[in-house]
Amino acid sequence: MERTLISKIEEGLEQVELKGRILNLRKLGNISFVLLQDYTGQIQIVFEKMKDVKLGDLILVRGKVVKDDRAKTGFEIHGEEIEVISSSAEDLPFDISKKDLKLQLSNLLDFRTTSLRHPKVQAIFKLYDILLEEYETVMREEGFTEVKTPKIIETASEGGANFFKIKYFEKEAFLAQSPQLYKQILTGVFERVFEIGTIFRAEPHFTTRHINEFTGLDAEMGMIDSFYDVTAMLNKVFIKIFEGIKEKGQKYLDLYEVELSSVPDKIPHIKLIEIKKIIKDKYNYSIPTETDIDPEGERLASRYAKEEFNSDFLFITHYPWKEKPFYTMPNKENPEETLGFDLIFKGVEIATGSQRIHKYEELVENMRKKGVNPKGLEFYLETFKFSMPPHGGWGLGSERIIQLILNLGSVKEAVLFPRDVKRLRP
Amino acid sequence: MERTLISKIEEGLEQVELKGRILNLRKLGNISFVLLQDYTGQIQIVFEKMKDVKLGDLILVRGKVVKDDRAKTGFEIHGEEIEVISSSAEDLPFDISKKDLKLQLSNLLDFRTTSLRHPKVQAIFKLYDILLEEYETVMREEGFTEVKTPKIIETASEGGANFFKIKYFEKEAFLAQSPQLYKQILTGVFERVFEIGTIFRAEPHFTTRHINEFTGLDAEMGMIDSFYDVTAMLNKVFIKIFEGIKEKGQKYLDLYEVELSSVPDKIPHIKLIEIKKIIKDKYNYSIPTETDIDPEGERLASRYAKEEFNSDFLFITHYPWKEKPFYTMPNKENPEETLGFDLIFKGVEIATGSQRIHKYEELVENMRKKGVNPKGLEFYLETFKFSMPPHGGWGLGSERIIQLILNLGSVKEAVLFPRDVKRLRP
Repeated sequence: MERTLISKIEEGLEQVELKGRILNLRKLGNISFVLLQDYTGQIQIVFEKMKDVKLGDLILVRGKVVKDDRAKTGFEIHGEEIEVISSSAEDLPFDISKKDLKLQLSNLLDFRTTSLRHPKVQAIFKLYDILLEEYETVMREEGFTEVKTPKIIETASEGGANFFKIKYFEKEAFLAQSPQLYKQILTGVFERVFEIGTIFRAEPHFTTRHINEFTGLDAEMGMIDSFYDVTAMLNKVFIKIFEGIKEKGQKYLDLYEVELSSVPDKIPHIKLIEIKKIIKDKYNYSIPTETDIDPEGERLASRYAKEEFNSDFLFITHYPWKEKPFYTMPNKENPEETLGFDLIFKGVEIATGSQRIHKYEELVENMRKKGVNPKGLEFYLETFKFSMPPHGGWGLGSERIIQLILNLGSVKEAVLFPRDVKRLRP
Repeated sequence: MERTLISKIEEGLEQVELKGRILNLRKLGNISFVLLQDYTGQIQIVFEKMKDVKLGDLILVRGKVVKDDRAKTGFEIHGEEIEVISSSAEDLPFDISKKDLKLQLSNLLDFRTTSLRHPKVQAIFKLYDILLEEYETVMREEGFTEVKTPKIIETASEGGANFFKIKYFEKEAFLAQSPQLYKQILTGVFERVFEIGTIFRAEPHFTTRHINEFTGLDAEMGMIDSFYDVTAMLNKVFIKIFEGIKEKGQKYLDLYEVELSSVPDKIPHIKLIEIKKIIKDKYNYSIPTETDIDPEGERLASRYAKEEFNSDFLFITHYPWKEKPFYTMPNKENPEETLGFDLIFKGVEIATGSQRIHKYEELVENMRKKGVNPKGLEFYLETFKFSMPPHGGWGLGSERIIQLILNLGSVKEAVLFPRDVKRLRP
């Protein structure tokens, strides 16, 4: 007999053979109720007499399909035969049949290889899968070419610290903090490119916000008229992603009892200097002078967007020149500002982007002013001698989007096997 | 006026504004012919009088749409106005209007940021984009969940050499050679998973076959009955990928004058021991004893598959136990063999896979026999105490597929910015 997938159970099927994991197991007198999960769904199986099986076992079940309007799928199975495919030698250190695992973060992550089996934990990564699918789809619809750029680089570019060093044969090399320079170069080739790739950041902070390895959703587009073309595209991307999550991920959202934010057709834009004034006047909070905006400032900016525009999304624009990397286009009308922006969602920055400098002389001059050593960046710089298009783009942190949608306490919960200052395992 | 994309030019449109790069420029008397490319296509523009522009310039053109049955798109543009958006300060070191760049590999790669602008070079990566899209699509259709596993790992797992070392804060860590252990663990969670991720290999060989960083297309599936479920799935994946390339990529294949191989409905399988005998008897070649099969052996195996089954694809199966990593399932009928396979395409190995051991005791025993130190792998090993499904999977080298489809001389041509022993730049 061929295996039937749970999602394929329908009117007209009589006998089926199912395979899956026992997610829940109850007995009422002689009757046993098994909640079975395969990679397509869950279904209840009722046995009058049942072989001895354990919660968490992988089993094969043969039985009869019976209509049951009370069941989510519309069916239940009257089990007839059961075979154990794989059983546990020991009980799991926690009960996956409970509604919530209620583990501390460190336990949740220490026992990650099995805590992931809990349906509510799985749901995080089913949503993550939808996020990737929607991003891939919308980027292609908009004419972006998917690219893969190197993660091992010769020079700690972008003038920043926080690079991991690697031994590359006889040389020293670094792990890329972003595909920034490569994706810019590629606007001169494909005009529009996107990349889904690993981002390495050697940030030494141990917080619920920091991870040292994550998956970036990057994009870069040429032939723009202004950086508003970039924010408009990013707006469109979020509309599409949230539509996809709504359509395919509702059951996962339900497990967390969250309502998905709606994405405005036009996400409000506000200049950094203006929002800082509003935060001061309206919420009586002064952003520390050593930073352009701090997490509390982002939270209050978001609160303002919610109160004023009923939006969970907000573009903060025109970040100061001195805070932004050398490739960021200065604002011609006020050179102390740039055409750089952040996208804030539910109080947290999830994307950073800008228009970039596309003229060789301007780039050289901006690097000089910022004291960036062009050594090792010649390959990048030289490319700008050869007719690069006006361009801009963004980098999005993928895991953080899912964290914020589900209101998870730490971004680490949205990474399968997170890496932080203290955690390299599992 | 709004920009019109070249692919959107159609009957009924009169005036258009196009933006793109000048790929070719010819003059016949007073008439100028411009071949313009944007990210959706190419079109010819004819000017009676034209401003001075250069090959490679990015321009904006306003003009009239004229039907022209000789043109590939069915239209040409009678140019009226032209504006230069971005021009080169210097001429490119090569002529992108020529049919072929004819650069030596080292020059092609040294000048990579601009040699990529040649349409024939671009075509490689447009096909690569289709490959990624088709892989993502077919894996989702088959119920695989897309996952991202860590690239920084604590232990040089899989018992192999060739790991890059990194400094991870106060510790030493390694770059992952594959998502192997993680994807196996995840069959216990999602049953079917796939990953598109960076693979790091510190192989010190400088050849046309070796790159030190590439993009792997990995998959792992649970609840299999035998490893033939895995080869059947991989067969299905290639049918879908090649259909997609045929449908969307023909114009890129045409530039290379290649005919796409057809993928058999059932790719032939042959045991390693048998193909070795055939290679000896039929082609009089003895595979060196220190290896299971060498590149020449793979070439001849493939020749046999072509001659005997008219297939460019061949599964070689049952690789010897002593050559395969500890997680590979031994063949119960002959423990000197494993249930491991390679997929050969046009004479070259493009995928490696196997059924894996899924029982804790067997895994411990196989590691012991192979002398693999379980230290640092406890998180992996312990998971097998908890009802893991019978499972198997594969790892595919994405770049090599495109190399072989286009008959490129080196796999490095199929990587945007390749990394080899000598090359860390651009």
